[in-house]
Amino acid sequence: MKNFLEDDFLLQSDFAKRLYHGYAKDLPIIDYHNHLSPKEIAENYQFNTISEAWLAGDHYKWRAMRTLGIHEDYITGKASDKEKFLKWAGTVPFTVRNPLYHWTHLELQRYFGIHELLGPDTAEEIYENTNAQLAQKSHYAQGLLQQQQVESLCTTDEPIASLEYHRIIKKQGVSPKVFPTFRPDKAFALEGGDDYVLYLEQLSEVSGIAIKNYEDLLEALDNRIQFFHDQGCRLADHGLEQLYFFEEGTYNIQECFLKVKNGRPIPQDQVNYFKSQVLLFLGRKYHAMGWAQQFHLGAIRDNNKRLLSQLGPDTGFDSIGDFSQARALSGFLNALDSTDQLAKTIIYNLNPADNAVIATMVGNFNDGSVKGKVQFGSGWWFLDQKQGMEEQMNTLSNMGLLSCFVGMLTDSRSFLSFTRHEYFRRILCNLLAQDVVNGELPADEKWLGKIVSDISYYNAKSYFDFNK
Amino acid sequence: MKNFLEDDFLLQSDFAKRLYHGYAKDLPIIDYHNHLSPKEIAENYQFNTISEAWLAGDHYKWRAMRTLGIHEDYITGKASDKEKFLKWAGTVPFTVRNPLYHWTHLELQRYFGIHELLGPDTAEEIYENTNAQLAQKSHYAQGLLQQQQVESLCTTDEPIASLEYHRIIKKQGVSPKVFPTFRPDKAFALEGGDDYVLYLEQLSEVSGIAIKNYEDLLEALDNRIQFFHDQGCRLADHGLEQLYFFEEGTYNIQECFLKVKNGRPIPQDQVNYFKSQVLLFLGRKYHAMGWAQQFHLGAIRDNNKRLLSQLGPDTGFDSIGDFSQARALSGFLNALDSTDQLAKTIIYNLNPADNAVIATMVGNFNDGSVKGKVQFGSGWWFLDQKQGMEEQMNTLSNMGLLSCFVGMLTDSRSFLSFTRHEYFRRILCNLLAQDVVNGELPADEKWLGKIVSDISYYNAKSYFDFNK
Amino acid sequence: MKNFLEDDFLLQSDFAKRLYHGYAKDLPIIDYHNHLSPKEIAENYQFNTISEAWLAGDHYKWRAMRTLGIHEDYITGKASDKEKFLKWAGTVPFTVRNPLYHWTHLELQRYFGIHELLGPDTAEEIYENTNAQLAQKSHYAQGLLQQQQVESLCTTDEPIASLEYHRIIKKQGVSPKVFPTFRPDKAFALEGGDDYVLYLEQLSEVSGIAIKNYEDLLEALDNRIQFFHDQGCRLADHGLEQLYFFEEGTYNIQECFLKVKNGRPIPQDQVNYFKSQVLLFLGRKYHAMGWAQQFHLGAIRDNNKRLLSQLGPDTGFDSIGDFSQARALSGFLNALDSTDQLAKTIIYNLNPADNAVIATMVGNFNDGSVKGKVQFGSGWWFLDQKQGMEEQMNTLSNMGLLSCFVGMLTDSRSFLSFTRHEYFRRILCNLLAQDVVNGELPADEKWLGKIVSDISYYNAKSYFDFNK
Repeated sequence: MKNFLEDDFLLQSDFAKRLYHGYAKDLPIIDYHNHLSPKEIAENYQFNTISEAWLAGDHYKWRAMRTLGIHEDYITGKASDKEKFLKWAGTVPFTVRNPLYHWTHLELQRYFGIHELLGPDTAEEIYENTNAQLAQKSHYAQGLLQQQQVESLCTTDEPIASLEYHRIIKKQGVSPKVFPTFRPDKAFALEGGDDYVLYLEQLSEVSGIAIKNYEDLLEALDNRIQFFHDQGCRLADHGLEQLYFFEEGTYNIQECFLKVKNGRPIPQDQVNYFKSQVLLFLGRKYHAMGWAQQFHLGAIRDNNKRLLSQLGPDTGFDSIGDFSQARALSGFLNALDSTDQLAKTIIYNLNPADNAVIATMVGNFNDGSVKGKVQFGSGWWFLDQKQGMEEQMNTLSNMGLLSCFVGMLTDSRSFLSFTRHEYFRRILCNLLAQDVVNGELPADEKWLGKIVSDISYYNAKSYFDFNK
Repeated sequence: MKNFLEDDFLLQSDFAKRLYHGYAKDLPIIDYHNHLSPKEIAENYQFNTISEAWLAGDHYKWRAMRTLGIHEDYITGKASDKEKFLKWAGTVPFTVRNPLYHWTHLELQRYFGIHELLGPDTAEEIYENTNAQLAQKSHYAQGLLQQQQVESLCTTDEPIASLEYHRIIKKQGVSPKVFPTFRPDKAFALEGGDDYVLYLEQLSEVSGIAIKNYEDLLEALDNRIQFFHDQGCRLADHGLEQLYFFEEGTYNIQECFLKVKNGRPIPQDQVNYFKSQVLLFLGRKYHAMGWAQQFHLGAIRDNNKRLLSQLGPDTGFDSIGDFSQARALSGFLNALDSTDQLAKTIIYNLNPADNAVIATMVGNFNDGSVKGKVQFGSGWWFLDQKQGMEEQMNTLSNMGLLSCFVGMLTDSRSFLSFTRHEYFRRILCNLLAQDVVNGELPADEKWLGKIVSDISYYNAKSYFDFNK
Repeated sequence: MKNFLEDDFLLQSDFAKRLYHGYAKDLPIIDYHNHLSPKEIAENYQFNTISEAWLAGDHYKWRAMRTLGIHEDYITGKASDKEKFLKWAGTVPFTVRNPLYHWTHLELQRYFGIHELLGPDTAEEIYENTNAQLAQKSHYAQGLLQQQQVESLCTTDEPIASLEYHRIIKKQGVSPKVFPTFRPDKAFALEGGDDYVLYLEQLSEVSGIAIKNYEDLLEALDNRIQFFHDQGCRLADHGLEQLYFFEEGTYNIQECFLKVKNGRPIPQDQVNYFKSQVLLFLGRKYHAMGWAQQFHLGAIRDNNKRLLSQLGPDTGFDSIGDFSQARALSGFLNALDSTDQLAKTIIYNLNPADNAVIATMVGNFNDGSVKGKVQFGSGWWFLDQKQGMEEQMNTLSNMGLLSCFVGMLTDSRSFLSFTRHEYFRRILCNLLAQDVVNGELPADEKWLGKIVSDISYYNAKSYFDFNK
């Protein structure tokens, strides 16, 4: 029986240990997709308490607490930081087998050197201990990133963002390097009505292009892409229930746009058509710029309208959808590829039942031009856990080339989440080693070590053009 | 190599053995959903033969026999009880790896003390032995339940049921306690045409409310819910291909109802609208009564029309559908939740590809008011087997809180099925222990033992208000 | 730690070894579905190089090479056989965990006695060695089949095929026996337009029936079925995204047919109706002839139109779809069964998320008339790998009878693919043995050995009527 979370955590064989400790552990981190605040990085934010760092924005933890029957006061409500932490500590033992259990203790061990388990008995002591450490410079925002050897990271940013903090960080010359990511979802959210019109005004202002019609919108986006590019951005990201594909000209796109701009709603199918056309425009632009584009597919957001109205979006009421993905995804990628304008692309699915569809669809558009050009993305959100990662890597292995995988990202809003790269690397090493133990792969440490280090670091380094 | 079905069956580590024998084995059973006959319980039914107890109503076994190429005469036909048993005995060795193989031998061992394997060689002897035991009072209906320490159970009952046998059982004061469950599917089955009209007449009669229009129907159902409540019912159940969600007022519900009542069919979409509206009414009522509501989603029934016409429904021609579930389920639960009238709810899916959708959807409606208020139900029907249970618990663990799970139910028509609780508990203990063995959980026996006993018994006990 | 690909490859327990070596290894092969060229068999084709045998038609390998970033010149292009082989050899180490890695080395060991790993260092030597062996009669087309003890095999043939090579092979009296399979997809591909009209002309010619209307088409197909039957064919096969089911008379089928025949396209829904009606006609015919019918469901073909236009179909741009399958499959099978005209049927799904749907749907139509009459087919295409096979067998075990399974087929265009039967048998033996090791099955070697040999050989032998 193994001790919990020791050096050899998740490494079930000697070969796994050799792979992890020899080829993965010491590599820097390229976290190419997250939701960190560039302001907090630039200002080297100091967290007042562990509650602020852990609980203020983590809807994973909130969902767990609500399921256990804890009142909202202690979750997002008016209770004090300490009260909230004590409730969370009481919840931790009930998160058995949930990734939160591993994440929580990994973060305590790696960031704070605390090897006790969090629970009601240890809550007070751990609260004091972590708070004291958070007051040290080593545990300010930049210190937390440096502790984990984060070499570079990509935040997620609105086209209308000024990117001022990215410039400040660059000037500071600190580690890690911080790049923006272009996330234009709101720029084609015609279903937003008045919010969309307001968004257009903001976009007009920052781009200096008065957006009167559809062509103006495209020009403004083009302008912002160039601006992002100049700030080092090499990645775009999109969150969609599903991709849409229509024959061009199915609707009059100018009319769709002008109707919404003038305050009149249009049918959902026209909204989708509009989105698909803007995404094709953007995709071609990304290709021209040498960027990679990401698509996060399949979430149903804001399911609980009552609590949405009380707490706002992104507060823990999103879940996994069961949309049909294959046909439209094929049509969309093919539309870009047909003129050889398909950028490097990463597709993430939220429903694990779609793993095989995504793993095989990306293979249709790998054309020999770039190693791993179209990628099946790492386990996302609800799938960002051991089984989810293993299933993603198993499907990718069986239906594509695991060896070309660009690997892990945190997708997190938290400065304390970077141990998930360690978590991922351990799982990766263990999977490969298990095959060796079972006689399903030759016991060639050097070869498998190279595969491991490629997936942990080098593939991402060469795939993304961050320094060009 | 381990012997088959021994004391440590399914327990692959010492830690698993300690969890099962120390914390799960001796707990009573709360079987909160099954299809036992209250009449047979009340009359303490004595089975004439093991064929009657095992084969007369078990479509799992029938499907296996048909697949092996056995003539219907020996399955539901005119062959003698003994002939049927011999055919079943000949089938058992061919059920290798099917849950029937485990269930059959568990039931032989636990209820009859028979440790031989059933097959052609042992069939005669086992037939005589089991029949002799079934003639003993210990093996009458109540005795079989008491042997397994069934503390309480919930049958499944029509709104028009008199519940007379539930009253008789209560008067007898015997163990286990038997509660009815309100299963109103037929009360909104507008697609039934004449059968539906006939049903309304019966519902009018038992409720004393002449059902002339839609409001009368709701009043009659309200009346029956109160009646069921007075008999100790605290649970409702519904079997649907999928939940439906419509904007209120999409159709004129009174017209839908009156058309069908007057013998005219209505389009399927209107049938679905009607169902959704009645289910919302019922859901709000359940909430007011403090009940829990169950939804069994995703079966396609009566696929084989030729054999349906010969043998009737529920004879082994149902299978797993692939309906889209997420969007309508979200809309339905949200409609109830929007006025804070969502009752405790358990969702069971038949298609394992929907596990992640259900596991995450329930989390959207856990609002801190009740521990585990909205539950992802245990592996149902085709998924009521080791892999199905493990996958349900793994998904629940990764995407929710396993610790709040109300656990196992038999869903069975057989008095010999209660060993499935043992089966479930062994699998649960083994899953948790395997994580300990792998160093993925701390080896804290007391903590994990509590989790095990909660899921085996205490969570259900506190979740359902049977004694209020 | 086990050595790679040894005698006990994939056999993780002594019991597994005993099952494989004692009951599976030496059985002949019935490969009841593949895409070998009857011409190459008849002419006992001699391969010029290992590149020709391995790389000329294998889109699995092509996809891998493209993903790694290798230029099309070295894949399907103008590079020499040797250049292509060297690129493939350089790719092999990057196929780690993909089935290609196992297949490649199994084929090198079993057909060529080469135990080195293929990679850049060994490429030259292996190229020479394999080429030299391919020049030996033992490695001509027939020799390769005989090496693997192939007793009989079924090719896949157009209704318009002359089957001349099947007659030649039969006259030669060589081993294996080679039977045609009737694959009529093009005979109802109304979406093909001009290609379809051209196809009708060819069908008219070979059948001697001038196809002027729908009835003529059916008569011509009837004629070809009889012709195929006379050449020993006992199997049909169909590749479809999904089965379609409509009420008879939904459209005027004669009009649908005549429109397309006269050069006018019809809507997709009418195309689907037409297909469904022809498939029902064919299904009834197959039943009358005592054939088995196969359906391969769920591929989306030719996703990459740019490369399709350069390289043609079947060049590696197909992937897994996510069609809804259950309802229409139920309707289709039921339509045939309703008059008791459902032939023996095998359903293969490409999306593993459909496993449970298929495994349970086939059970609805097993009516006791034939052992395993309606089958859930072995892991197909992207699922033809260890995990895919295991999942198919686990689902089949849990939801049906594994013991009645007709087992493995290569579905391959390559004469070197027959080691996949060995691969399958090893996995089968290991699965059963693992249950024994875990105490989930009794350690009855004779009984499990019989199950293994049935699935490896005897079930297929009795299921297909090749010698009648």
